[in-house]
Amino acid sequence: MTTPTNDSYAPTREDRFSFGLWTVGWQGVDVFGGAVRPELAPAEAIHRLSDLGAYGVTFHDNDVFPFDADAATKEKHLAPFRKALEETGLVVPMVTTNLFSHPVFRDGGFTNNDRDVRRFAIRKAADQVDLAAELGASLFVAWGGREGAESGAAKDVKTALDRYAEAFNTLGAYVLEQGYDIRFAIEPKPNEPRGDILLPTIGHALAFINELDHPELVGLNPETGHEEMASLNYAHGLAQALWHGKLFHIDLNGQTGPRYDQDLRFGAGNARGAFWTVDIVEHGGYEGPRHFDYKPPRTEDLDGVWASARGCMRNYLILRDKVRAFRADPEVQQALKDARVDQLGVPSLASGETVADLRAESFDPDEAAQRGMAFEHLDQLALEHLYGVRG
Amino acid sequence: MTTPTNDSYAPTREDRFSFGLWTVGWQGVDVFGGAVRPELAPAEAIHRLSDLGAYGVTFHDNDVFPFDADAATKEKHLAPFRKALEETGLVVPMVTTNLFSHPVFRDGGFTNNDRDVRRFAIRKAADQVDLAAELGASLFVAWGGREGAESGAAKDVKTALDRYAEAFNTLGAYVLEQGYDIRFAIEPKPNEPRGDILLPTIGHALAFINELDHPELVGLNPETGHEEMASLNYAHGLAQALWHGKLFHIDLNGQTGPRYDQDLRFGAGNARGAFWTVDIVEHGGYEGPRHFDYKPPRTEDLDGVWASARGCMRNYLILRDKVRAFRADPEVQQALKDARVDQLGVPSLASGETVADLRAESFDPDEAAQRGMAFEHLDQLALEHLYGVRG
Amino acid sequence: MTTPTNDSYAPTREDRFSFGLWTVGWQGVDVFGGAVRPELAPAEAIHRLSDLGAYGVTFHDNDVFPFDADAATKEKHLAPFRKALEETGLVVPMVTTNLFSHPVFRDGGFTNNDRDVRRFAIRKAADQVDLAAELGASLFVAWGGREGAESGAAKDVKTALDRYAEAFNTLGAYVLEQGYDIRFAIEPKPNEPRGDILLPTIGHALAFINELDHPELVGLNPETGHEEMASLNYAHGLAQALWHGKLFHIDLNGQTGPRYDQDLRFGAGNARGAFWTVDIVEHGGYEGPRHFDYKPPRTEDLDGVWASARGCMRNYLILRDKVRAFRADPEVQQALKDARVDQLGVPSLASGETVADLRAESFDPDEAAQRGMAFEHLDQLALEHLYGVRG
Amino acid sequence: MTTPTNDSYAPTREDRFSFGLWTVGWQGVDVFGGAVRPELAPAEAIHRLSDLGAYGVTFHDNDVFPFDADAATKEKHLAPFRKALEETGLVVPMVTTNLFSHPVFRDGGFTNNDRDVRRFAIRKAADQVDLAAELGASLFVAWGGREGAESGAAKDVKTALDRYAEAFNTLGAYVLEQGYDIRFAIEPKPNEPRGDILLPTIGHALAFINELDHPELVGLNPETGHEEMASLNYAHGLAQALWHGKLFHIDLNGQTGPRYDQDLRFGAGNARGAFWTVDIVEHGGYEGPRHFDYKPPRTEDLDGVWASARGCMRNYLILRDKVRAFRADPEVQQALKDARVDQLGVPSLASGETVADLRAESFDPDEAAQRGMAFEHLDQLALEHLYGVRG
Repeated sequence: MTTPTNDSYAPTREDRFSFGLWTVGWQGVDVFGGAVRPELAPAEAIHRLSDLGAYGVTFHDNDVFPFDADAATKEKHLAPFRKALEETGLVVPMVTTNLFSHPVFRDGGFTNNDRDVRRFAIRKAADQVDLAAELGASLFVAWGGREGAESGAAKDVKTALDRYAEAFNTLGAYVLEQGYDIRFAIEPKPNEPRGDILLPTIGHALAFINELDHPELVGLNPETGHEEMASLNYAHGLAQALWHGKLFHIDLNGQTGPRYDQDLRFGAGNARGAFWTVDIVEHGGYEGPRHFDYKPPRTEDLDGVWASARGCMRNYLILRDKVRAFRADPEVQQALKDARVDQLGVPSLASGETVADLRAESFDPDEAAQRGMAFEHLDQLALEHLYGVRG
Repeated sequence: MTTPTNDSYAPTREDRFSFGLWTVGWQGVDVFGGAVRPELAPAEAIHRLSDLGAYGVTFHDNDVFPFDADAATKEKHLAPFRKALEETGLVVPMVTTNLFSHPVFRDGGFTNNDRDVRRFAIRKAADQVDLAAELGASLFVAWGGREGAESGAAKDVKTALDRYAEAFNTLGAYVLEQGYDIRFAIEPKPNEPRGDILLPTIGHALAFINELDHPELVGLNPETGHEEMASLNYAHGLAQALWHGKLFHIDLNGQTGPRYDQDLRFGAGNARGAFWTVDIVEHGGYEGPRHFDYKPPRTEDLDGVWASARGCMRNYLILRDKVRAFRADPEVQQALKDARVDQLGVPSLASGETVADLRAESFDPDEAAQRGMAFEHLDQLALEHLYGVRG
Repeated sequence: MTTPTNDSYAPTREDRFSFGLWTVGWQGVDVFGGAVRPELAPAEAIHRLSDLGAYGVTFHDNDVFPFDADAATKEKHLAPFRKALEETGLVVPMVTTNLFSHPVFRDGGFTNNDRDVRRFAIRKAADQVDLAAELGASLFVAWGGREGAESGAAKDVKTALDRYAEAFNTLGAYVLEQGYDIRFAIEPKPNEPRGDILLPTIGHALAFINELDHPELVGLNPETGHEEMASLNYAHGLAQALWHGKLFHIDLNGQTGPRYDQDLRFGAGNARGAFWTVDIVEHGGYEGPRHFDYKPPRTEDLDGVWASARGCMRNYLILRDKVRAFRADPEVQQALKDARVDQLGVPSLASGETVADLRAESFDPDEAAQRGMAFEHLDQLALEHLYGVRG
Repeated sequence: MTTPTNDSYAPTREDRFSFGLWTVGWQGVDVFGGAVRPELAPAEAIHRLSDLGAYGVTFHDNDVFPFDADAATKEKHLAPFRKALEETGLVVPMVTTNLFSHPVFRDGGFTNNDRDVRRFAIRKAADQVDLAAELGASLFVAWGGREGAESGAAKDVKTALDRYAEAFNTLGAYVLEQGYDIRFAIEPKPNEPRGDILLPTIGHALAFINELDHPELVGLNPETGHEEMASLNYAHGLAQALWHGKLFHIDLNGQTGPRYDQDLRFGAGNARGAFWTVDIVEHGGYEGPRHFDYKPPRTEDLDGVWASARGCMRNYLILRDKVRAFRADPEVQQALKDARVDQLGVPSLASGETVADLRAESFDPDEAAQRGMAFEHLDQLALEHLYGVRG
């Protein structure tokens, strides 16, 4: 298969693209069918991702070594993994732990009703924190995919949030005690595989963090599709996370609205949403990796897997060009003024003003109501930048 | 039309049911058609709601007096309103202001790109805060229905959140300065009438409050349908709001999943969700009114309006009976134990324990993975309480 | 675990409840985790379902024998299956074939782009048709779960519908040629596991059937959750299928709106929808089995599996009682008249009337617009029947 | 406001763009607020649309003359309308009738429980059919927006379908009797303004048509957003409608998944969906107008209205260029072969083959299962055509 090439969209290490090992390594098992692709050795994945231009890989513990691995087995699996990192120069900016695949996590990890399981889950996470530290990862992502419920009485949500906070407090204390330079990032999701998942959106996770012992240690890792499954605007969510200083990491992929978690490659799915996502990621103050958390569709063989991984990065770079061109376009800048976007940056009250000052001024709402916002013209310019038909 | 009566479900003032004037007063104007019912005078609504057993009414400023009312006109409209309150003994536990109907609010109020409009919106809210204080209302609800955008560049979300916070800070300072005993409650909504609304869910609003000058003054007013429009579990959301100490008020109604804002009477829509809603409202520590924010369908004449208002209260009382019976049922209590819900209340770590203690203990995940959670049996008991076929 | 018993809700063979072997036999494999329950032998499932009161079981070929079974292996697996049927007296009212689990079906069966796979899929279905005939099943269900696409160019929908029709025409001709007393039922689904599935709703499948060589051989098998995933009203869909004379079979389960396919037990999910579902199934002319296609949640062990299977049947029987009581309630009958539901049964034009007659009559729309429909009162009565608080 | 101009995207009459008068004429009334724009005279709209490059306008009766107009009043309003058509040369390819705005239609028109209203609705439609004939329109669209229910017992769906069919049969007979060259097109919608609307999707309407006295007279007018509100793929739906020979007309606009009916300008909303929509419209055999049914957002003044109308047409033309380039691209053509899309066009069975022939051939599913479908590469090419970064 020949590959579409366009040098200006060839990724480099400076672009800081990273992939989860579980993405290109997904074998295609779903509720309705078994594996369609052979197992992919982590070292092989690292080499291929490096060749494609990625700068980093991320992983769950059990993406690299088995769930029941003892220390020797763990090391046996880590050795080729480490070697591949060395050979390629790829980094591990983030790790995470799998608290959802083994049947013991049928009711979750940190908020499992079964106290024994909760204790085991915290320990399993702490072990992976150690590995994170060893590998130089500065971020530990927590996706609580099985923390939730299908039915009302099974989970006391207030109490579950107590336990959830306890787990983060325990792990936070552990990191501080060990002197690790590691922070945590919560990945929200509204549902699937549980009927309702705790901390279902960016907002819920942001609020939760404020109740922790060390809120400064914990931020967010929002995923495109997870927010869109709740009909939410991902770019808006990223903006709010940035506003709170909590956008520690991102999971980019594609989705088509409220339905099952599609995990399409970035760019596929909501194309306009992707444009605004890259705009806020590039211009909103985010400083972390551009991380892809997607699943190559089950229709694909390994060639298709690499085509899709390449597509994720190309689409990001294509859109990065577009959002830069959009922001630099003088007609756009005029349209932003016409839409009074600049006025939004001016505080509503001048320094020292109070409600009394507002009451003192005359204002004719009927006259002001005549003013259109000129948003359609502005949005059309944005769309034409997405289409690539300007300039 | 005769009315189904069952004395045990006849509401009393002690049940603390309240209605927005805009609910029974909705004339049926929507995007596709005009009014189907005559205007309903506020005083008439108050008398009818009182007769039906409500204890309170709530209102937007322009539910009672016109948008452009001067002081005399305002008073002319308030006089019969006050008189009806006196005659019936109904209270006004909450008020709110309309920042969405007049065309001047086409781009919202507090976050309108137009600074003049933002200033006017804050002033309009402050005027209504004064009226709240005068009427003895202790809560001011802020639904920012037009605060949002249909397109990506039109609204800089981070800056909009600055302005949103500024508005609450200004109003909070005003309340403190005036010595009013009034708190604020934000009502989240994901979309409609804007493509994406700021602070779209309970979580986003909870997080936002933490950034305000006086977070203690601000809490939430979550609405059933608004959360369900985002595929979120309303009872879970109420539980999280309670966990944060921020459930200041509730808007009860009915909805059928992600679609337009249906505002069905409480009980209609998601019946199982309503059961768990009443469970958390009754048993989760909420102390405010049981407030209905719904719209009698356009199919109804005024008889139907009152039938639907009556239904809201009856359904709440029926469900209150059911959730009490559920919690008191010994078989349920056993099933909760079998589901290990009690274990969730036990901290995962004993006092003084750390990760080291977890690592020291032996745990066989394969053995533990055999234990079923027994949630289906528990949920079936709950469902049979909803059906009324137990006891 | 003790079981809630209430003799009036104990199922009997006359109730004609059936289950797919894949329901109670689901081991819990999903995208995020492996099996949580041991394999369940079909014979064991048959005995347990019989004990619980079911009258029939249904199955995919590979629920009973392996994908690659030769004739001897097939027979080896069928022997205990047949024996269990004989021992219990359970019948097999319907069978189906698995065209979605093996990786060869990564792009579907009947509409796979790969012609070889399509030929194999038709042959596999024909083999299972033979088994259906042998077992006395009169219905063959076709769920085309992998017939679809994630991306736009991959599937030419018009051509795919040609192939889809060809498959049904071929199988129809085969059934006629063999003299089998077997009909087909298409099971629509909007998405998952494919991004968009062909024949996504009841309506699309009904329309498709009209283009087949033998439309009389093909009807529908609509599933609760599949329609609700598309925000559609399942009871309305069943009614339309009945209107077309095409409701050949039903798949009852539970779902909470547009999200992943939850396959909750019947009664869980949309409780009000379940009430109206049973109403149309009981009173709309449907004559087939009451078939459950659900998945016991992954939280459950085998005890939980049987609790959930029992719950499906109990909930149906509880609701059957309720809908009968609703229809028999004199106040409901009056409310139906007040809502003018009876008038809907009167043709709009009397026999022989034409548009000219309509034009000749006088009608005052403003006067008629005053008449409320009294739907809220009627719906409240229905809800109170669901709650079990009437009579 | 200056306008982005690019001559290659300037619409001409040959492009056959048409708009509903109610689109640019929408004053912004919604559930939460009143008019934001002045009334727009139909003649003014016609002139402006003509200047922008449209070739046709469509309208509901009461977009041009009042609901209660007598013949003289009707003519008074029609005169300037006709004059504007003559002056501009614009045509009226389609008309429709408003059976949803007046309160008499609170429970719909053709399926209203009230027989008097049904008779009036049919008569009102017939009057507008006469006007259609007079104006040379060959299509009459029927959007049954109020045909539906919010609650289960209020509408007997089977009986309602009888009445629905009766209305189309009556109007069909009228058209034949009058010798009009007019066909009907049903416009499906799943919900809003009713809780559930009858004939909710393309599929349901296609199936319904088969039961009519004159199915050849009736086809479909599918709307982008209406299908996407049900999570359905609009391009797939158009393809199925074309497969049935029933795509009589289209309503193009924009939507962001299951939520309220957004009616965004075409191109806004689901950008990838729009690409595939134009692909099927251009290449699938559709021969009608490119009709826009959208609502300029409430944020806009009249300048914004015209900007959005212009945007609809520009976006169509931009996408038309793109889909042509996509289909002509040799790399795409190769990728289509690699994805075996061509194989889908080959019947699965050769002429004369039966199931017996399939059984006679050897096929190794495990070997065939190795073949990837190469869909990701193909889809990436499509996306890059959308982005405008190829060629």
